[in-house]
Amino acid sequence: MKTNPGRFFEDYSVGEVIDHAIPRTLSGGERALYHALYPARHALHSSDEFARASGLLAAPFDDLITFHTVFGKSVPDISLNAVANLGYAEGRWLRPVLPGDTIRSESTVIGLRENSNGKSGVVWVRTRGMNQHGDPVLEFVRWVMVRKHRAESPAAAPIVPEVKEFVPADELIVPAGLDFSNYDFTFAGEPHRWGDYRVGERIDHVDGVTVEEAEHMLATRLWQNTAKVHFDRTQREDGKRLIYGGHVISLARALSFNGLANAQSIVALNAGAHANPCFAGDTVRAWSEVLDKAETGAPGVGALRLRLVATRHGAEPFALRDALGKYLPDVLLDLDYWALMPL
Amino acid sequence: MKTNPGRFFEDYSVGEVIDHAIPRTLSGGERALYHALYPARHALHSSDEFARASGLLAAPFDDLITFHTVFGKSVPDISLNAVANLGYAEGRWLRPVLPGDTIRSESTVIGLRENSNGKSGVVWVRTRGMNQHGDPVLEFVRWVMVRKHRAESPAAAPIVPEVKEFVPADELIVPAGLDFSNYDFTFAGEPHRWGDYRVGERIDHVDGVTVEEAEHMLATRLWQNTAKVHFDRTQREDGKRLIYGGHVISLARALSFNGLANAQSIVALNAGAHANPCFAGDTVRAWSEVLDKAETGAPGVGALRLRLVATRHGAEPFALRDALGKYLPDVLLDLDYWALMPL
Amino acid sequence: MKTNPGRFFEDYSVGEVIDHAIPRTLSGGERALYHALYPARHALHSSDEFARASGLLAAPFDDLITFHTVFGKSVPDISLNAVANLGYAEGRWLRPVLPGDTIRSESTVIGLRENSNGKSGVVWVRTRGMNQHGDPVLEFVRWVMVRKHRAESPAAAPIVPEVKEFVPADELIVPAGLDFSNYDFTFAGEPHRWGDYRVGERIDHVDGVTVEEAEHMLATRLWQNTAKVHFDRTQREDGKRLIYGGHVISLARALSFNGLANAQSIVALNAGAHANPCFAGDTVRAWSEVLDKAETGAPGVGALRLRLVATRHGAEPFALRDALGKYLPDVLLDLDYWALMPL
Repeated sequence: MKTNPGRFFEDYSVGEVIDHAIPRTLSGGERALYHALYPARHALHSSDEFARASGLLAAPFDDLITFHTVFGKSVPDISLNAVANLGYAEGRWLRPVLPGDTIRSESTVIGLRENSNGKSGVVWVRTRGMNQHGDPVLEFVRWVMVRKHRAESPAAAPIVPEVKEFVPADELIVPAGLDFSNYDFTFAGEPHRWGDYRVGERIDHVDGVTVEEAEHMLATRLWQNTAKVHFDRTQREDGKRLIYGGHVISLARALSFNGLANAQSIVALNAGAHANPCFAGDTVRAWSEVLDKAETGAPGVGALRLRLVATRHGAEPFALRDALGKYLPDVLLDLDYWALMPL
Repeated sequence: MKTNPGRFFEDYSVGEVIDHAIPRTLSGGERALYHALYPARHALHSSDEFARASGLLAAPFDDLITFHTVFGKSVPDISLNAVANLGYAEGRWLRPVLPGDTIRSESTVIGLRENSNGKSGVVWVRTRGMNQHGDPVLEFVRWVMVRKHRAESPAAAPIVPEVKEFVPADELIVPAGLDFSNYDFTFAGEPHRWGDYRVGERIDHVDGVTVEEAEHMLATRLWQNTAKVHFDRTQREDGKRLIYGGHVISLARALSFNGLANAQSIVALNAGAHANPCFAGDTVRAWSEVLDKAETGAPGVGALRLRLVATRHGAEPFALRDALGKYLPDVLLDLDYWALMPL
Repeated sequence: MKTNPGRFFEDYSVGEVIDHAIPRTLSGGERALYHALYPARHALHSSDEFARASGLLAAPFDDLITFHTVFGKSVPDISLNAVANLGYAEGRWLRPVLPGDTIRSESTVIGLRENSNGKSGVVWVRTRGMNQHGDPVLEFVRWVMVRKHRAESPAAAPIVPEVKEFVPADELIVPAGLDFSNYDFTFAGEPHRWGDYRVGERIDHVDGVTVEEAEHMLATRLWQNTAKVHFDRTQREDGKRLIYGGHVISLARALSFNGLANAQSIVALNAGAHANPCFAGDTVRAWSEVLDKAETGAPGVGALRLRLVATRHGAEPFALRDALGKYLPDVLLDLDYWALMPL
């Protein structure tokens, strides 16, 4: 058979390194599409002039463009037969990506555990993105539940990797040269600096976006993510196309501009859960909570650890879980990340 | 509160200069999206070769890309709480914008008048766009009706600026170097030159475009315009998303290619009214009327003053107002502009 | 009248050369949009690095970007009043197109035959695309059925050109410098090389895409194709917008990646039929059949002649025609092309 059936649970072995296909050269075209698909407005990623005033060569891509590109390449090898995308950990952005860079990615299998039902199992991978010089640009751990091909395939001994609950502040990588000493808060869009946020503070991001089928499909294809459920309405009995979880991440991050305009760059992805599926017609909203704060050593640059929650319109403000600890039905995403912000 | 509530009527004072946030570097990506979103075909903005043969360095962006970018930046400061976008005047394009340029904008408050109901007022601003060298690329006056935050806020003495009914021909700025002496009418798409149009002539542009939600949202986000009513269907009681008026301007201008293919560049925006709201599902059509003609002094370059009217399918051809002078319900836009055309 | 009514059957004469309007400079923006609109993943067109390792200067555009651009320019002169797009032949890609290139096109009328009903006729044209240096990049023959303006216009003597059933392998043009000797099958996404395909083999490409109105309109406008039926729902009695046949070609070609990932470049279009119309809401699938194989003389480069069939979800696998030889109702496209593949 010439077509790719995707890998099943029993096709993985711990320690295996999988080189993902189709390196991709990114240009101003991907940036323009990102701005058309999401209400993204962080000045560092929008303006070459602002980026130069911040010590960079030119405006790097939004960090989530890097994430989606690296992630998308891993889909045919990791999650084509995934039942669920269970979690993320230890994500770190290691180097800015600029127009003209070519990105590829690879994943190392770091854990495997068959489910007790014998029909599926959990696969942990550490995925890395590299540019055309072989320099790493991003790494993260994710784990997915993958179907077994045959229930009778023998189960290997489970190996469950330990992952950090969050990336420690002293392991954050600040882009080389980044300097917020002369940061222009007017151009950035808000006056609130690192010192203005306190741990425990919560921000309702106010705006909402009603999602259309064409939009999430354009976005998901842009990252060469090929999972069938996003594009083919015959895949689910209810005829709905499941929206790529990363689309919700980008929507929520862009909505969080309103209240976190100076959280310019994402430098770590500590954890993340796609709490409930999102479908076309949903109006997506977002709120954030400040989880922690740290200095970085780079001039004028602080870090905020943030929880970013995406909800469907109608959700109670700041409500997350029910009495049993289960995500409420209108919570779509619960993401934990570190962002850089001027001191 | 960290989020931007937008300004209310009582937050403005005449003479105040507001620097708008988020400078934006534009690339071939924005041009490609413009061509995907609108049936735009003017050769000067489509082909570097055609632009060079016309004395320019490369194909500048469609003039409305400049307009939308400059306008979009002003939305969070000027029209987030606007009830209505009332008018435009004294718009002039001052310099072409090319891929790689970074655009920012600022607005000066030039007029304020509280409405007799005490609940809102009209704000006049003169908005200017600048490139990365600080050179102005566009300026225009617009006035919007903005809600008051508190009805009891005292009303300042009204200041209503005088704006010109239209930009006089001798104040039009022709792009430096523009030369239509060797204009290629075949490449441009139509044989009709400046001398072929007479004042009073009306042109039905024949084509129509049925608008989808995904399209107008992609377009409006592309310009980093954040007004909620365009994206969030929970904002209006009827569940409809209001289409950004600028989307209708670009649709109508692109449709006007068929009959005005040689009206290559917009150099002035004399006046404009968004006569009725446009919604997804509407099929937009357009007609034009020649209002005036002028020479420019640049080699081979004439100017036409044009009325551009966008209508919803079903509108009577060339009908504009009812017996009482009110716009007919299927008229969406009534725009008055100057364009450059080969003599 | 200033607007373009399009040409009617009696407006063509054999031997006439029509220069099409609006040369177009392409950038990374068009490539990014192509990746957003179609699940296109061929590595040669995605990565500058992969293209350089294959002997090219940089990643050329997908060959269908060239096709759509050249074709789109011909629409206002050839098919604005077309009743049907009847066929293609003798299509050859002659030179890669890279970001920054400016494309124009021209058509020579090579055949005319009035239909017996006296109301329409078939027009054959040979269309050529050229870059900014005047070098040809693509040529193809197509024939369309075009309405007559007046039934009483006299019919000229019919001239029906002979076209080759398919482009012979020894007339295929391999891009200068192309070398697949060090081809990276991992980066390309599949291990199957030229030698792994046998004539008669059929491949079901497994994936499907449900099409939205916004998507096909964005795509069709991107190529500056102006045929009304694609954009204006008032043009057909059933209120449907007919999807541009080329959109289905690109969808099917992109879907064929899964099973033909190494069929990197299209070098010839032998024949093609838009068997049935496609509308928004249809879920498009594809299958291929290997029709022939050939070597090319270029290092490591072989050629496969392929039939690519697009179907609507629900079609019987590999079924094409009914007992009377008519295309089955869920067959959308039957395309015959040559692609280059590593030996």
